[in-house]
Amino acid sequence: MGDCLKLRVDLNCDLGEGYGAFKVGGDAEIMPHITSANIACGFHAGDPMTMARTIDLAKKHGTAVGAHPGYPDLLGFGRREMQLTSAEIKNYTMYQVAALQGFAEAAGLRLQHVKAHGALYNKAAEDEETSRGIVNAVQALGEGLIILAPPMSVLAKVATDAGLRCAKEFFADRAYNADGTLVSRTQPNAIIEETKKVVERVVDAVVKKTVLASNKKVVSLGRVDTICVHGDTPTAIRLVQALRTGLIKAGVEVKPLRSFI
Amino acid sequence: MGDCLKLRVDLNCDLGEGYGAFKVGGDAEIMPHITSANIACGFHAGDPMTMARTIDLAKKHGTAVGAHPGYPDLLGFGRREMQLTSAEIKNYTMYQVAALQGFAEAAGLRLQHVKAHGALYNKAAEDEETSRGIVNAVQALGEGLIILAPPMSVLAKVATDAGLRCAKEFFADRAYNADGTLVSRTQPNAIIEETKKVVERVVDAVVKKTVLASNKKVVSLGRVDTICVHGDTPTAIRLVQALRTGLIKAGVEVKPLRSFI
Amino acid sequence: MGDCLKLRVDLNCDLGEGYGAFKVGGDAEIMPHITSANIACGFHAGDPMTMARTIDLAKKHGTAVGAHPGYPDLLGFGRREMQLTSAEIKNYTMYQVAALQGFAEAAGLRLQHVKAHGALYNKAAEDEETSRGIVNAVQALGEGLIILAPPMSVLAKVATDAGLRCAKEFFADRAYNADGTLVSRTQPNAIIEETKKVVERVVDAVVKKTVLASNKKVVSLGRVDTICVHGDTPTAIRLVQALRTGLIKAGVEVKPLRSFI
Amino acid sequence: MGDCLKLRVDLNCDLGEGYGAFKVGGDAEIMPHITSANIACGFHAGDPMTMARTIDLAKKHGTAVGAHPGYPDLLGFGRREMQLTSAEIKNYTMYQVAALQGFAEAAGLRLQHVKAHGALYNKAAEDEETSRGIVNAVQALGEGLIILAPPMSVLAKVATDAGLRCAKEFFADRAYNADGTLVSRTQPNAIIEETKKVVERVVDAVVKKTVLASNKKVVSLGRVDTICVHGDTPTAIRLVQALRTGLIKAGVEVKPLRSFI
Repeated sequence: MGDCLKLRVDLNCDLGEGYGAFKVGGDAEIMPHITSANIACGFHAGDPMTMARTIDLAKKHGTAVGAHPGYPDLLGFGRREMQLTSAEIKNYTMYQVAALQGFAEAAGLRLQHVKAHGALYNKAAEDEETSRGIVNAVQALGEGLIILAPPMSVLAKVATDAGLRCAKEFFADRAYNADGTLVSRTQPNAIIEETKKVVERVVDAVVKKTVLASNKKVVSLGRVDTICVHGDTPTAIRLVQALRTGLIKAGVEVKPLRSFI
Repeated sequence: MGDCLKLRVDLNCDLGEGYGAFKVGGDAEIMPHITSANIACGFHAGDPMTMARTIDLAKKHGTAVGAHPGYPDLLGFGRREMQLTSAEIKNYTMYQVAALQGFAEAAGLRLQHVKAHGALYNKAAEDEETSRGIVNAVQALGEGLIILAPPMSVLAKVATDAGLRCAKEFFADRAYNADGTLVSRTQPNAIIEETKKVVERVVDAVVKKTVLASNKKVVSLGRVDTICVHGDTPTAIRLVQALRTGLIKAGVEVKPLRSFI
Repeated sequence: MGDCLKLRVDLNCDLGEGYGAFKVGGDAEIMPHITSANIACGFHAGDPMTMARTIDLAKKHGTAVGAHPGYPDLLGFGRREMQLTSAEIKNYTMYQVAALQGFAEAAGLRLQHVKAHGALYNKAAEDEETSRGIVNAVQALGEGLIILAPPMSVLAKVATDAGLRCAKEFFADRAYNADGTLVSRTQPNAIIEETKKVVERVVDAVVKKTVLASNKKVVSLGRVDTICVHGDTPTAIRLVQALRTGLIKAGVEVKPLRSFI
Repeated sequence: MGDCLKLRVDLNCDLGEGYGAFKVGGDAEIMPHITSANIACGFHAGDPMTMARTIDLAKKHGTAVGAHPGYPDLLGFGRREMQLTSAEIKNYTMYQVAALQGFAEAAGLRLQHVKAHGALYNKAAEDEETSRGIVNAVQALGEGLIILAPPMSVLAKVATDAGLRCAKEFFADRAYNADGTLVSRTQPNAIIEETKKVVERVVDAVVKKTVLASNKKVVSLGRVDTICVHGDTPTAIRLVQALRTGLIKAGVEVKPLRSFI
């Protein structure tokens, strides 16, 4: 009985986001500290060599692996919305997830989850057609993959309605609006800089299931299953360690999604 | 006992070689007439939408499906040699084959084979490092995939030495040199135009296991398992029908590789 | 005096829209029949070899040349809207136009105009930031380039306000809405099929400066400077010839934009 | 008279080699210390936004600008040989150089030179067809562009025979073979690490026109016009400053190519 009352959360991070000779740092440093790695699959970033290396790195540290598919926009790092049909999103997502699955299986691993990247994630949060594309891809691949989605998002609803497992994600260092969406990066104060504050907010999100929005209102998030952290800043490791310590101290177990979703 | 003496051959064709709005014709027409389809996977041609459609088309006609990976050279349609390492070829091949595998599995199919495309195929025919890259990819994917290779090529040897199944391929309408290699397309007479002659040569290749080289010498090919035909010319269908008729008349069964390799 | 009363119009067509081995037909057939060619520059279609060939073809037939820049979306042929900033559109447009300018100048030609492609053109028709990106690029290149735009569009206004020359374009075989926009291709009746009707509409657009909208209302277009025709259908040549004949019969001179804008 | 006896040398560096969100550092730091910038043009690296920024940076510091065209291989950063025809190399080079020229002219600058990148440069050093492609592109663009080439290379010969201006380049920190070629990066000792030694070698290359090859033989280089330095390492600035000091002390003037070639 105790176990089902126990709070658990996953720590995820976007990794393998280099491209050929373009290296994006921090993967080796952050990998041991997270429980799930979202690995780029070649559309917004990532290439076969980087994918193979990142899968090996995850295997070495026992980190769960997931696909991080994005828009076909290497030039814009998948951060620019594209007007795609549901069928295009389905097939682009299938392509990327299946390609990564090949590397995972060759290393004796299984993909745990799918987390859309950048503008595709943001669009899916509020757009049904986009969400349906992602959900249809995961259903077609049929591997029991967990979909990551913002709490109370359209994507979370479409995934759940389709009978898929869905993990609700909270962004560790991002400010939230009163409607539960993220404050845009173009706004000042979009990023919470202070480590102590980040840890408090994350613990609140997991334990109290709330976040203090930028307008000072307390917003209910519902269950939070995974915390997104960044790996590409020099302070990332320290932040993740502080998060782990804070979560454990608050009685929250930090473990990969597959063990509790 | 009769069955093991019976000659059998597969008819393969490169399909799904469009890219987005760039359509490359003939897929729907040729698909019912071949036994194996080599489907482009996005590097030299092919895109997720085209891959999904081509897999569906193969399923509809019961045609066996294989991956047709190429160099990462969309601009050159994979026809230009690139100096890649064995590790690059391995990972690029894995990426492409695994991506297609996702579409095949979603349609309830399994990939039967891998046939390298264009300059990658030609390079592998004579280069050990390139061959090793392809063979390592197929081993890592571990799905019992058959590798297509020219008879007596380096690729055939590396694949066979690695314990993989290898199908020897004869090009229906291409002239051969005395060393068993293809006469370059830049040469006049590289292509055999006359249908009757093409059929005779194919029957000879399968039944007598020989080809009349461009220097009029009879070259021994060893066993031929599959015949490569083209699908993008108006006369392709008639040629394939003539080949089928000619082969059957010569006592050769036309059936997919998976049934006899 | 007579000359300034004389009606004149240009016939433009999108050309050079292949990519490497992906050929898109009809360029050689249509080139002699039009007065201005919009040449793809490598982002949505077009590649350096195709650009060089298309410039040579235009030179041979004395056709005026212009750049046809698009979104960086080869996979979608530039037909899908992308959320780009004004600065991104400016620099992407400059890159494409300048690249084509190199080929034009090497052939002893000068670019006459810039016509945005597909979704970029449609977006610019109604979006100021997109229009500003295109206009800023043309100003920065400073070659007196004419911008093509729909009559009464945001792009036409932004270009004119910036002091650039702007040619108003009518689409020969497309149905128009009552607000002067094109009926979407996803609608039935978006395309006018009947040659006689197309010719009548084009003559009306140029001479009466009106079009009969899909709701049967007569819409005022203002001056029309150029007619967009298609080159990739078998009937394209006959349609263009019929247009020329019809226009001349109605007293309209058919000549390149540079001679009258 | 004095002036024509005076030794002069240019310091060049590859810059603008990021791609979209993939940043490659050091441009802002190194730009003030060099006399010529080789700017990537979008094929192996570089994109329109980065090109615009790098041109602005060069303008701010009065650094001469040149194009740095490469193979169409973003995935391999242009470091892998591709088997291209002379016509392909010509048109790919024209495209890249002309695109950059647009940005330079918009900023009120003129391109000074063309330096091929990576594997294209290495191939041109010894291959006539490749050299001819580059030389034909520069001739077609007709802007008096200087071609950078290794001393005694095939490229230098083809460029000079074609009547183009050619600057001979010495690599500051690379070891040379007895035949005047660079020791491959795959070899140990390919890179000279010690600053003092690098400065001595560069001064010898410019003043004595020789280099001590890896086999300890003194190799004659002929005239050296430009020294290639790297900008992407933390020690790059100090090395360039040491080179400048060493060259000036040896009586060599450091100035852009256009002032003396």
